[in-house]
Amino acid sequence: MKKTGNDNPNEPFKRFSSEFIPLVDGVIRDFYDEKIKSAGYPFMADMYRDIAEYCARQGKRIRPLVLLLSYFGYGGDRDNTGEIIKCAAVLEMMHAFLLIQDDIIDRSEMRRGGRALHLIAADKYSRGSAGGTVGSDIALILADVLFSNSLEIISSARIDPEIKNNFMAIFSRTYEMTAWGQILDSMYSMPGYLREGENPAEDISTLKTAYYTIFYPMLMGYVLTGRTIEEESDRIEAFSLPLGLAFQIRDDILGTFGQVQETGKSADSDIEEGKLTCLIQGVLDSMHDAEREEFLSVFMKRDKSDTDVDFVRRKIIDTGSLDKTRARHTELLEQSTAGLAGLQINDESRDVLMSIISLVGTVQPFIPRAND
Amino acid sequence: MKKTGNDNPNEPFKRFSSEFIPLVDGVIRDFYDEKIKSAGYPFMADMYRDIAEYCARQGKRIRPLVLLLSYFGYGGDRDNTGEIIKCAAVLEMMHAFLLIQDDIIDRSEMRRGGRALHLIAADKYSRGSAGGTVGSDIALILADVLFSNSLEIISSARIDPEIKNNFMAIFSRTYEMTAWGQILDSMYSMPGYLREGENPAEDISTLKTAYYTIFYPMLMGYVLTGRTIEEESDRIEAFSLPLGLAFQIRDDILGTFGQVQETGKSADSDIEEGKLTCLIQGVLDSMHDAEREEFLSVFMKRDKSDTDVDFVRRKIIDTGSLDKTRARHTELLEQSTAGLAGLQINDESRDVLMSIISLVGTVQPFIPRAND
Repeated sequence: MKKTGNDNPNEPFKRFSSEFIPLVDGVIRDFYDEKIKSAGYPFMADMYRDIAEYCARQGKRIRPLVLLLSYFGYGGDRDNTGEIIKCAAVLEMMHAFLLIQDDIIDRSEMRRGGRALHLIAADKYSRGSAGGTVGSDIALILADVLFSNSLEIISSARIDPEIKNNFMAIFSRTYEMTAWGQILDSMYSMPGYLREGENPAEDISTLKTAYYTIFYPMLMGYVLTGRTIEEESDRIEAFSLPLGLAFQIRDDILGTFGQVQETGKSADSDIEEGKLTCLIQGVLDSMHDAEREEFLSVFMKRDKSDTDVDFVRRKIIDTGSLDKTRARHTELLEQSTAGLAGLQINDESRDVLMSIISLVGTVQPFIPRAND
Repeated sequence: MKKTGNDNPNEPFKRFSSEFIPLVDGVIRDFYDEKIKSAGYPFMADMYRDIAEYCARQGKRIRPLVLLLSYFGYGGDRDNTGEIIKCAAVLEMMHAFLLIQDDIIDRSEMRRGGRALHLIAADKYSRGSAGGTVGSDIALILADVLFSNSLEIISSARIDPEIKNNFMAIFSRTYEMTAWGQILDSMYSMPGYLREGENPAEDISTLKTAYYTIFYPMLMGYVLTGRTIEEESDRIEAFSLPLGLAFQIRDDILGTFGQVQETGKSADSDIEEGKLTCLIQGVLDSMHDAEREEFLSVFMKRDKSDTDVDFVRRKIIDTGSLDKTRARHTELLEQSTAGLAGLQINDESRDVLMSIISLVGTVQPFIPRAND
């Protein structure tokens, strides 16, 4: 495999993205174009349009891309790329499914720079009904439609059925593991749930993100080449779990110290929702008794004022939690880099994976009040 | 096949049920016993127990039974029954998934004689958190866990992978069709949604129930024998759509005129929730202008008093809607009986299907105030 000669470490991933994101998005778009044409009722056609628009919004498409990198990197048959891209697209649909549910649970208003699906549904389908839960009820079931569509795409893909069955086994595990992560996340986003001494933030991120974002997509790409998991699974884990965890930590840092034009959501929302991120865990680990109680009494408020949010953000900086979290982030990326060296993958995919490590390493917290 | 000589028309279904329900339930129980043993965290083991208890509650298990009847009736290999029962069990898990979501959406408190899952979750996992949506947030994701578990069971079943893929294709369609039915149901359960002249009640029931309960399970059993759909699909449809619709109409009648010890839920709940059943559609079809507006103003109230509920129930009787709905129910069962005669199925399964028609035909509305 040729090296590119380009010094920008993000370049290989950028090139890979710009080649394959349009193909992944194309699978989803074509699928819904067909669905819209053949819809049995006008309301179905409308709602397919809503789903398609939601799926088409800008995003990193990290899971489909990792699946493809793994498939190509482990010597998957290039002649069948079209069908493999369907499996990759399905991961993006599963992700959209989870985002829709997430926004319902968190009462979020924005997602990927657009309106959350439950608000779109409320606007379009409540015919002037005064509030209520119409929008989230419909969005919840639309998420089910999306998920069933992803199963339809899998079942229609022309892939050896034995291999497809191995893919499905990992697909179901991915979905379950992520659900557990979400549940743990919900449990610890509640007033009174967390006890002193508990330290679940990394567990939440591992279950919710690390397996889901890098490990399982890599494993899926691997089995789609026709191999059995055992040969490479441990090596894939050594590379991908630290990278996935670092990915979540980056997301957490930008979720509290990012800018809306970059992240597509408000930098207040994680704090407002009382998410137990590594940043908050770091604050709590540094506090005891009355100080801890005082912090929690603000952090666990259901409706936080701007002053409350700033208080929490300030504590993340002043207790050293931000610095500690960034150090952990760096350490994880080093582990992942070491893991990458052990993978039996080809050089082309290795370059792109290195470039993902580099991208996940890019996190510049924006600290608006620290320099005041 | 021998006739049983028993005169009770319900007997064949009863015998079939008592033979196969324990096997279907056994698949789910064994699966969760294993999950509980191997759970990575204590909270997961607890929640698997909740899911297993929920799935084990008494129910008709109509969908798994119809799948098995079809598989046996179309000459499926008896040696592989154990694996086919896994596919049948998966339909019950899909059903439980939908019931959990349904109860969240409808804010129901009881299901199958027990507490709705979102209330169980609220009791167990909110650690004294004052209300909020903790219970429904967790139950929503537990439903996802259940669904992913159903995919895991499918992927682990030892069935020819080509056949399994055909099964999956129908499975995904089933799930989607039912979701559309639920959405239509939600849309028309809203104040202000229904316009005069619209008549969506049978569409809702067809999408939500008829395909899901009889048609698709029969089709799944059929393809699991290794045949392709086209040969028998139209005949299965002619038998099963009217039966499925009659099944929903029976449910609607008992949902408003049944007794809690039989149905497991209050006879007020459909009216309280403003469900647009065939009974309500019949009332609306008989009314115009001011009378219709008056009826709707009561029926669409979010919080109905006992007097409101009685008013609605009275109207269903007095406008003749109950009688009309019962007549439609009878007509559908006649259509289904005619369809049954056309099926290329063996006599043993035919007897049991006839017995299902007879059971769906058994509906004695309990009219507490009509005899006052």
